[in-house]
Parts: sequence; C-alpha cells; structure tokens
Amino acid sequence: MKATVLYGPRDVRYEDVPEPTIQEPTDAIIKLSASCVCGSDLWPYRGANPINEPMRMGHEYCGVVVEVGSGVKTVKRGQFVVGSFCISDNTCPHCQFGFQSSCEQREFMSGGQAPIARVPLADGTLVATEEMPPEDLIPSLLAASDVLGTGWYAADAARVQPGSTVAVVGDGAVGLMGVLSAKQMGAEKVIAMSRHKSRQELALAFGATHIVTERGEAGVSQIKKITKNVGADAVLECVGTQESMNQALYCARPGAMIGYVGVPHGVKFDGQELFMLQRGMIGGPAPVRRFLPDLMGLILNRKINPGKFFDLKIPIRDVAEGYKAMDERRAIKALLSV
Amino acid sequence: MKATVLYGPRDVRYEDVPEPTIQEPTDAIIKLSASCVCGSDLWPYRGANPINEPMRMGHEYCGVVVEVGSGVKTVKRGQFVVGSFCISDNTCPHCQFGFQSSCEQREFMSGGQAPIARVPLADGTLVATEEMPPEDLIPSLLAASDVLGTGWYAADAARVQPGSTVAVVGDGAVGLMGVLSAKQMGAEKVIAMSRHKSRQELALAFGATHIVTERGEAGVSQIKKITKNVGADAVLECVGTQESMNQALYCARPGAMIGYVGVPHGVKFDGQELFMLQRGMIGGPAPVRRFLPDLMGLILNRKINPGKFFDLKIPIRDVAEGYKAMDERRAIKALLSV
Repeated sequence: MKATVLYGPRDVRYEDVPEPTIQEPTDAIIKLSASCVCGSDLWPYRGANPINEPMRMGHEYCGVVVEVGSGVKTVKRGQFVVGSFCISDNTCPHCQFGFQSSCEQREFMSGGQAPIARVPLADGTLVATEEMPPEDLIPSLLAASDVLGTGWYAADAARVQPGSTVAVVGDGAVGLMGVLSAKQMGAEKVIAMSRHKSRQELALAFGATHIVTERGEAGVSQIKKITKNVGADAVLECVGTQESMNQALYCARPGAMIGYVGVPHGVKFDGQELFMLQRGMIGGPAPVRRFLPDLMGLILNRKINPGKFFDLKIPIRDVAEGYKAMDERRAIKALLSV
Repeated sequence: MKATVLYGPRDVRYEDVPEPTIQEPTDAIIKLSASCVCGSDLWPYRGANPINEPMRMGHEYCGVVVEVGSGVKTVKRGQFVVGSFCISDNTCPHCQFGFQSSCEQREFMSGGQAPIARVPLADGTLVATEEMPPEDLIPSLLAASDVLGTGWYAADAARVQPGSTVAVVGDGAVGLMGVLSAKQMGAEKVIAMSRHKSRQELALAFGATHIVTERGEAGVSQIKKITKNVGADAVLECVGTQESMNQALYCARPGAMIGYVGVPHGVKFDGQELFMLQRGMIGGPAPVRRFLPDLMGLILNRKINPGKFFDLKIPIRDVAEGYKAMDERRAIKALLSV
C-alpha cells in the first residue's frame, strides 16, 4: 500500500508502507472513502514543528470498517464511520465532561492520507451512520472529522448565542467552518475577516453577513464600526499567530469569550493586559467527538454543506501538489480521492 | 475633614483634606457607615505600583446619602446605599452586557477611607436599601462593595454549577468570599488552598469542605487526590501572581474555566501551553454592580454573613495600623469605624 509521509520541510511523498493491521483489540481498520490535507498539516510541512523521523500524515478520515479488534463492541465491519482527529475512549471523566480531546487515553490520529488506516479506540472514536451515505456527501462527512468540528468548537467555546454578533479571525477552512457554525447557532451578524476574494465568497456562502478586509488596528476599527463601538459578542480565532490572537482580543467586547482553535505558535499573553481587557478565552484541540453525531445529522439531512470548501480535487498519488497548493494559498483545502 | 492618603511605600497617613463636594451633576456625597482596607490596597502600599503623587485611598464603601447633584434621579438624600468599587453608568452596552466594570464611563472609586466620600455616577453605581439596615449588618454590606462581589464574580466567571468541585487559590478576603460564593451556588466540594490556621477556620465557616495546605506540584496532587485524578471543575484565582495562576491552571480539569480576580502582577501565559492544557479563563475587575442587588438581599435576609472575616476593628484614625497588620498578615481584613 502507498501512503503519505513527510520527510522534512516541503518534502512530502506518497510511497510504499506496510498495510495497517489490528495492533490492539480496541482498533478498527477502515477503508477510506476520501482523504484530504488539513491546514494544520502545513505547520510541520513548513518546518514550524521539528520532524525527527518520517511522519505518516493525515488525521481526517471517513470510510467503511473492514476489520475490528476482538475488544471492539459497537463498531461493526461494513459500517460507514466518521471519526475525530482526536482518538478518545468516550468514557473517561474528561470525555464525559465533553472534552474528548483531553481524553485520558488521548492519541492524535495519523496515517489518514492513505487508502486504508488504523483507528485506535474504535468504539469511543468512531460514529457510524445507519446506512451507506450518498457519494456526494462524502466530502462534507470528511470535513466533520476535523475542520467542521473544530470550527463548531470555536463557536461553542466563544459561546455564540442566537442574535450574537460574531467575528471570525482566519479565512482558512477552519475559519470558514467557524462562519458556518456561528450561522447555524443563530448568530445575527457574522463578520469574516478575509483579504482573499475566493474565501470571502465562500464565507458569504457559509453565512457571513459582513466581510472585513483590514487587519490590525484598522481591522479592529472596522469591527467597532459594525458593532456601534462595542466589539463582537463572540470571537473565533482560527489561525494561531500572535497577530491573529491580538486581532481576536481587540475585536471582542469586554466580557466576550474568544474560542481559539488555531494551534498557537509563539503566542504569549500578558496577564494584566488580559485582565484589564476583560476578555475570556478557551481553546485547545477540538472535542469533535462531542459534536460529531449532531454534525453528521446536519450533513445527512442536507442542512449544511461544509464540503463545498474543497476547491482542489486530486488523486491521492498527487498529494504533494495538494500540500503545495495549500501552502501557496492557491487552494483552501485539497480533497484526495483514494 | 481627615482622610487616608498614601504617600509612598508603607507611608500611609490619616490627615486633613478638603471635604468632598458635588463636582458633577451626577455625583452623590455619602457619609460612610464604616470603611475598611482592601487586599488590593497593599499593592501600592508595598510599592508594587508606582505612586507619583499622594493617593486618596479607599474604594469600598456604604453609608447614607447626604447630598446629590442636580442630575441624580433615583438616589435620594437619607437613603442607605452600597456601591461598587467600579463606578459605572449602568446603561451603556457594556453595563447592559453585565460587565459594569468595563463601563464606557468607568472610573475606579477612591477616597472611601474617610468619613465622607464623593461617588460619581450615583444613579448607575449605588444600590439603595428600602430601610436603614441594622447596625450589625454594616460590615457585611460594606463587604458587598468589593471583596464579596469580587469573590462572587470569580465563581460566576469560573461557571460554578450545583454539584461542582471548586478549588479556590488564595485565602485572603477575596478567596474566602470565593469559598462563600461557590457554596451559595451549590458547589458540592469547595477546596480552599490555605496554609494559615485562622484563614482555614474561616474558609470552613464559609463553606469549604476541604483544605489543601500544599502549594505547587504538591498542591496539584492533593487536588488530584480529592478529585479522583480529574482536577477541579472550576477554579477561582484570587491572588494575582505567576505562582498562583499556575496553581489555578494545573488544579483545573480540561475544559474547566478559571475565574481570575487577583490583579495580575508579572503574570505571563504561553499560548501553546494554555491550548494543550485546554483550560478556559476569564477575569478582570469584578462587575460588582451586576450582583449587588442579589448580594445585598442575601445579607439583609441573613442568608450570608461575609462580614465575619473582619478580624481587626479599629478607629479610622489608626488606619496605618490596619495596613500594617494586613501587610504582615496579622489581619485578614481591617474594619475602620468612622
């Protein structure tokens, strides 16, 4: 079998690897229906994280179960499943508290950019559909695995309420999913901060009511204009840089929560500044598993169509081009047919 | 009239000053029923904040209105009132959002360690009782002005729920009020982190179910023991140092909120650490005005007795001794009779 392996900065290869097998009795093996490249894959691709040994890439996945370990009780061969990028048992106290991404047995999925993948803790991680979903919904179901669930978490963490004014910092796939989520949660105004025409159009299609192209202080003053000098009721930070985090902090009104899901790289906060600004924050890896059944329901009932952000569709053997196109911001998100 | 003035580190004097007068039509002048020294007064007293000119001290106050400006509509001469340490109009969007401590017209009260004080924005800041309260409730009503309201905000910000396990970092007056507040909100376990016998006793009297004397990693492991290795559902940070903030972060479970009300001095956060810990935070100056009517109701109905933390009662002319006793931790909180 071939799979995607990252060797170093901008060196991603689709090459022969051993086929995954059951290693623990709680594992499942799935045949992927499709795969994709995540914005967070670009951090190691760009050399922002050290790569000590070749890394098997891909943490977003959906597909058909082909084999389960002897300890797997609920997931069955032949089922169509979607799983979170965070592996969880869904029974520990952290899972029960709704934070499956901090599960006592947490692992991060890998090896999903391949035709076949091993999923640990299958019972806790995977959610099965009742029947085989129609082909055209596969991209959206794949999106639920990470970016949709992550955007949803950002909106949930920012406590978006019906009638809220929401600002979304970041126009990548997660930011766009934040827009969709805020809209679904009943936000009245959804402000997408984006400088890219194609992303602005998608943001509007996903429910944005305002586009702000400015950044920094000029961006803050646009948000202030839209909110009558108050600031946003809820802010979703979907990038992970100091600049984007400051943007989020200063666009929020006092008492607002910032849901931050961009993995922070070099971000620092000053305690006294945060205190005087009186902004709240919660972030972290998204507990996608908490939202997965509802999100899959919305997709299967065709209430949402997150998959339309895939603007590059290529065979998985061309995965390197998917990384390159996203790195160069020629593509928002690359769908890989397997 | 005499009033309390801070000249420099550990140089606080009770000396002649001009009597306060109406300066704005929205002002009220009140005759204080009692006054006190706040833990936060110790920051400038200890030299942690620069003192560029003599500072009129005291931001906690309750008493009888003796005069109102021409623009004051609801507050009347002869009424007994309690006000927040944050002056607010209670009508701007931030006030309406429940964050009166970020009011568009916010000022911080000063000059409360005196027999008579001026309160700006009287209509928005002061809450009157229906009748003159009995003398023995004055200390508790005075506590509502800041430390009780601040402890309550910490518990509200940390989202204490009925049945929660709550950890309180800091055993000063605000920490003790955090214990009382968590208990009132229905917390099942309230863990007070305290090394001082007299404060431990008060914490237990205010509703603490557990005392943890250890700090740092040992303190975290005690919390883990009490919570079956999970961490606290909600944490109240009531100190404001890097050490206490780290204590709060590591005592909390993933997904928990930390309500932080200790004014941060030199506190820094690393974005990636916060992200991976998946702890939420909101802090800032407490919007006491939001809680004041309810808190005054609880006191007047004798449901809570916050005033029992005053363990030093002295005439206001001896205010310097009040500061000294609190600085040396001989007293938790000094009540000044006026």
